[in-house]
Amino acid sequence: MSFELTILGSNSALPTSNRYPTAQVLEVPGFCFLIDCGEGTQIQLRRNKISFSKIRHVFISHLHGDHYYGLIGLISTMNLMGVKSDLHIYAHSELKTLIQPQLDFIRGDMTVKPIFHPLNFKKPQLIFESKKVEVLSFPVKHSIPTCGFLFREKQKPANIRKDMIKAYNIPIAAIKDIKAGADFTTAEGQVIANVDLTIPASKPTSYAFCTDTAFYPANASILNGVDLLYHETTFLEELKELARKTLHSTTKEAGEMATLSGAGKLLIGHFSARFKDISRFVEETREVFPNTEAAIEGRKYTI
Amino acid sequence: MSFELTILGSNSALPTSNRYPTAQVLEVPGFCFLIDCGEGTQIQLRRNKISFSKIRHVFISHLHGDHYYGLIGLISTMNLMGVKSDLHIYAHSELKTLIQPQLDFIRGDMTVKPIFHPLNFKKPQLIFESKKVEVLSFPVKHSIPTCGFLFREKQKPANIRKDMIKAYNIPIAAIKDIKAGADFTTAEGQVIANVDLTIPASKPTSYAFCTDTAFYPANASILNGVDLLYHETTFLEELKELARKTLHSTTKEAGEMATLSGAGKLLIGHFSARFKDISRFVEETREVFPNTEAAIEGRKYTI
Repeated sequence: MSFELTILGSNSALPTSNRYPTAQVLEVPGFCFLIDCGEGTQIQLRRNKISFSKIRHVFISHLHGDHYYGLIGLISTMNLMGVKSDLHIYAHSELKTLIQPQLDFIRGDMTVKPIFHPLNFKKPQLIFESKKVEVLSFPVKHSIPTCGFLFREKQKPANIRKDMIKAYNIPIAAIKDIKAGADFTTAEGQVIANVDLTIPASKPTSYAFCTDTAFYPANASILNGVDLLYHETTFLEELKELARKTLHSTTKEAGEMATLSGAGKLLIGHFSARFKDISRFVEETREVFPNTEAAIEGRKYTI
Repeated sequence: MSFELTILGSNSALPTSNRYPTAQVLEVPGFCFLIDCGEGTQIQLRRNKISFSKIRHVFISHLHGDHYYGLIGLISTMNLMGVKSDLHIYAHSELKTLIQPQLDFIRGDMTVKPIFHPLNFKKPQLIFESKKVEVLSFPVKHSIPTCGFLFREKQKPANIRKDMIKAYNIPIAAIKDIKAGADFTTAEGQVIANVDLTIPASKPTSYAFCTDTAFYPANASILNGVDLLYHETTFLEELKELARKTLHSTTKEAGEMATLSGAGKLLIGHFSARFKDISRFVEETREVFPNTEAAIEGRKYTI
C-alpha cells in the first residue's frame, strides 16, 4: 500500500509572505486525512486541486492558532458547497468550545456535521481504524497539550505458499491458523514449521507527524521503523536555547529523533518565519540524518 | 488630504487559488484602517509590507465568514509580536460572542486589547472621529445585517484671503467668524460679503465601502459625491437572478449606484469564484459608469 502526502503549509506561527502555517493531506487508499488546519488551508487545498468533499477526517495536533484557525473556514466552505457528510475531528476536547459559537452561527445552513473526538494527552491511543489502516495519537512535548499522529497500514497476515499446500495436502480449514502463525502437522504426524509454509507479508506502510514538539526521545519506540517521519525543526542549531524555551526542536534534534526511531526518511518543517531560506535547515539536519528533505508547500511525497 | 487604499482580497465566499476573501487597508494621515478581515488577511498584510502594529481600527461589514475569519489570526499574531495597544473593532455585537472563546484561550499572553464597538444596522451613524477624519457606518441590503462604511476628511473652514485682511484692516478677533461664513463690516460701516473675503477649502477626500449588498439606491444620498466608491459586483449581468436571490449586486447595478451617488470613480470587487477572468466585470460595469476599475489584490489606489 502506498500513501501520498501533500504539504499545504510548513511555516510556524508568525506569517510570512511565502509560507503557510501547518496543514497537510495524507491520502491513503479509501481515505483523505487532513492533518492540522492553519489559516489559509482551504486556499491551499484549492491550489493543490484536492477536493473538499473527500475530506472526512481532520487531525488537529494542538490548539495554537497556526494549527487550527483554518478549520472554521473549511467547514463553512464545505457547507456553502453543500457537502453532506460527517466530518470527524480528532483534537483536544476544548476545540469544540472554541469554535462552537461560530458553528452555531451558521447552523441554519449546516450540511456538514462535525463530530468531535477528544484526544488523549496522557498516552498513545488508537483513534481511527478501518479494515486496512489505523491511526494512533501519541503525546509529544510542547507548551500546551499536543499529540503526534501515526498513520499506518495494518499488518497483513503472512502469505501461505501454494507449493506447500500441495506438497503437504493442507486442508482449507487449516489455512487461517497457518496464516496467523501456526505450524502444521501432517496426517503422518510430521510437524512443518510455519516459517517453511509462509512468505511474510510486506512491511506495512507508515507515516508519523510530530509537531509542535521539543526533542522527546521517549517517542522513539512508538515511531519505530516508520517509513516517513515528519518532524518539526522550528529553529536552526544556533537558536537551540530558544528551542528549549519555547519547547520546539532544532535541526539536529529532528535528525536524532529520526535516527533513534529508525525512520526510513525524514521530512522537516514548521520553519520559523525569521528564516527566508530554508536550505540551511536541510544541510544541518543531514549532518545527523542524511535522508532528509524539507517540506515544500505544494509538493507531494509518496510513501 | 489624500487616502491610500490597498486591496488585500477581492473574492467572494468560495475560495479560489488566486484571490483572497474581502480585506483592504485604508491609510489616511495618522490612521491605518483595516476594512473586513477574511481568512488570510495577515498573510496579505505581510505580502504588502503593511505593519501589523499600525492597525488600531478594524471595520467588519457583516458576519459572513469570508469577511471576518481572518480576525482571530491577526489578533493572535499581534500578540505573538508583542504589539501593546487597543484594537478597536467596529462590527455586529455578535462578533464578540463568536470569537471571545478563542480570545479567552490566548488570554494569558494578551498584549493587544480588543475593544468591540457594536454597529447600528437601522440607520447611519458616526462611529469614529478624529480631528481631521470621520467614519460613518450605514446599513446596506444583504441576507444578514450588514453595514457599508464612509471614510471622509472633515470639511475644513474656508481660507481667508490675506490681501483682504490688509485691504479692510480686519482685526484678528474677526477672523474666526469670517472663516465660519460671516460677512465683515468695516469701521466705516461698509459690509464686505464673506464670498469676497474667503477662498473655499478644498473638497474633503472621501471613500466608501459597500459590500455585501444588493442594489440599494436609497444609499445614494449618503454616498453623494464620494471620490471613490468600492461596490461589490459578485455577479455578471447574466446571473442577475442569482444576485437577486442571494442579495448581491451585478456589474450594471454597481455602475448605477456610482452614477446615482455622483461618485468620482468606481472600484468593483467581491467577485464570484466561478469567474476566473474578471475583465468582463470591468467591461460590463463601464457600459454604465465609465470610470470603473477592478479591485486587484496588492494594488494601491490613491484617493
